[in-house]
Amino acid sequence: MDTPHVAVDRTVLRRNIDAMATATRDAGLDLRPHAKTHKCAEIGRMQLDAGAVGLTVATIGEAQAFAAAGFDDLFIAYPLYLSGDKARRLTEVAGTASVRVAVDSVEGAVAMADALGDARDRLEVLVEVDSGHHRTGIAPARAGEVAQAAVDVGLRVIGVFTFPGHGYSPDARSLAARQERDALASAADELTARGIDAGVRSGGSTPTVGFADADVLTEVRPGVYPFNDAQQHHLGRAGRDDLALGVVATVVQRGPGRFVLDAGSKVLGSERPAYVDGHGMLPDHPGTTVVALSEHHATVETTGTAPGLGSIVRVVPNHVCITVNLVDELVVTDGGVEVDRWRVIARGANA
Amino acid sequence: MDTPHVAVDRTVLRRNIDAMATATRDAGLDLRPHAKTHKCAEIGRMQLDAGAVGLTVATIGEAQAFAAAGFDDLFIAYPLYLSGDKARRLTEVAGTASVRVAVDSVEGAVAMADALGDARDRLEVLVEVDSGHHRTGIAPARAGEVAQAAVDVGLRVIGVFTFPGHGYSPDARSLAARQERDALASAADELTARGIDAGVRSGGSTPTVGFADADVLTEVRPGVYPFNDAQQHHLGRAGRDDLALGVVATVVQRGPGRFVLDAGSKVLGSERPAYVDGHGMLPDHPGTTVVALSEHHATVETTGTAPGLGSIVRVVPNHVCITVNLVDELVVTDGGVEVDRWRVIARGANA
Repeated sequence: MDTPHVAVDRTVLRRNIDAMATATRDAGLDLRPHAKTHKCAEIGRMQLDAGAVGLTVATIGEAQAFAAAGFDDLFIAYPLYLSGDKARRLTEVAGTASVRVAVDSVEGAVAMADALGDARDRLEVLVEVDSGHHRTGIAPARAGEVAQAAVDVGLRVIGVFTFPGHGYSPDARSLAARQERDALASAADELTARGIDAGVRSGGSTPTVGFADADVLTEVRPGVYPFNDAQQHHLGRAGRDDLALGVVATVVQRGPGRFVLDAGSKVLGSERPAYVDGHGMLPDHPGTTVVALSEHHATVETTGTAPGLGSIVRVVPNHVCITVNLVDELVVTDGGVEVDRWRVIARGANA
Repeated sequence: MDTPHVAVDRTVLRRNIDAMATATRDAGLDLRPHAKTHKCAEIGRMQLDAGAVGLTVATIGEAQAFAAAGFDDLFIAYPLYLSGDKARRLTEVAGTASVRVAVDSVEGAVAMADALGDARDRLEVLVEVDSGHHRTGIAPARAGEVAQAAVDVGLRVIGVFTFPGHGYSPDARSLAARQERDALASAADELTARGIDAGVRSGGSTPTVGFADADVLTEVRPGVYPFNDAQQHHLGRAGRDDLALGVVATVVQRGPGRFVLDAGSKVLGSERPAYVDGHGMLPDHPGTTVVALSEHHATVETTGTAPGLGSIVRVVPNHVCITVNLVDELVVTDGGVEVDRWRVIARGANA
């Protein structure tokens, strides 16, 4: 396959999936991986085979894609507003799969019940709480109020969840996990005090899952761990041997101390958190930094000799979820040899 | 169409296309718009109908998509390295369209001629020169050497080109255009001194095209201008009325001074140059700033009242080329009403 393309090392992928399954099982936590990362039926199946209880998705479109591929237990971890055709599409998914959805406001709960009509009891509902990331989610102290509103309009509440996205920073991982635990515990108490089921207490995330407290959490939803990426490497979550996915690129220009690759932001993505020192990493070329990215160019500086014109180079993206969503298929390799291609079945399923 | 989706105002689009066609015609410059921005046959056709001499593309895959849609004059403005199946694919495009390609090194010219074999004379070649962006392109003083090498291996050199990407900064636009002019003039002199055709002298770009010097340049290749974006607005290139493309999103959460939209980096893209004060702009909601972006969330702060839950909001992305590449189709509107859908025919055509 011509460059640039996205390649996945099957051996590393399987090792990452098995390691997470083992770690969460040993910790006494249900594992419900976030499938927005891979958007691949084959990988979702590997995760279930390793012991995952179901999948997490971000949108109704992703739920549709995985339900069509035979997945029957899906959590849409997003406070949906069911305008347009969304209620119909969501109800359709709930016809073939067990579906959990999220609410994070009284007004949102009422709107969801209104939009679903008679279908409202085909879904299970979790209340999203804010554990410090300050994106969506209600304050834990108000979780009971939201849950009560949901119950009052006929929704079936089964627990609470949060995403500790503020754990995406070096040294923030364990603190974010403690805040996640405290937020879920407070929110669950709020529900219990009102006699509402808080049996599911679900948290994130690849950087924080190793710190998850099973005395409070019942479930974790890491996404990135099957592949890992430069972000996870810089967070201290993944070693070089844990990087399963790379963008395969060709050297199209070279000079003293620098070279240019044919992979740019349209395949690597443009995210660069402050703690990552480049626009991706070249694990097979020590001493290199990706100093600039255009749509179809990566400019790399090197302390050594630049690889020759036409050389093939592997670039690990900063944020792998973005990269997967930029291609139609993943090239699966074993020992560097292509053994399969997997379709990105939920590519662009943003709605 | 459910949110988020990408909508294009046909009236503004047409006005932007006509304005650029008129301005370049009045300046005595050929217009060869970069189609990587829109990747749409319908828009490419509008550009040709308005007077463009052909299209620019970034990859062989983009050239294949536009050739298949009937476009017969294409410039692949990229120093291709023809590994794998690329020489065959490029030759195939050259069977139905007039194709120009780029070289920027002696070694690259030799490799290109080798890879093309007998097909080398079906293409025209431009030498890429670096006018200050420091990405690809040879120094102008060495353009003659590269052109000579290309001629010596049987390639048909017809001129020089550059991309003044360092013009993407406030106050840098006119300086970058002067450097573009000087680099092209020097490089053309180098070719002429060797008796090599330098009849085509091609430059960029939406921010710099207004400063292009027709005494040196013969052609310009702006890309973003049919849509414009938040970047162009902050560069002073586009007013609010010139913004033809927006991501249509729904308010999924709101609170005092803030709200959250269901459009994130998987549709808006993650680029944020230092001179842009947010992750996109909401031109219909003064006083707002998109302060954070996740894959499916945009967090907006407002000095006014947040729009109601479920409200529909238009977000203009920072870099429109990234957004178009994230969807399969554009929703075409007129007076806010959907009138058509156009397919993004070269989506993901990175190779």
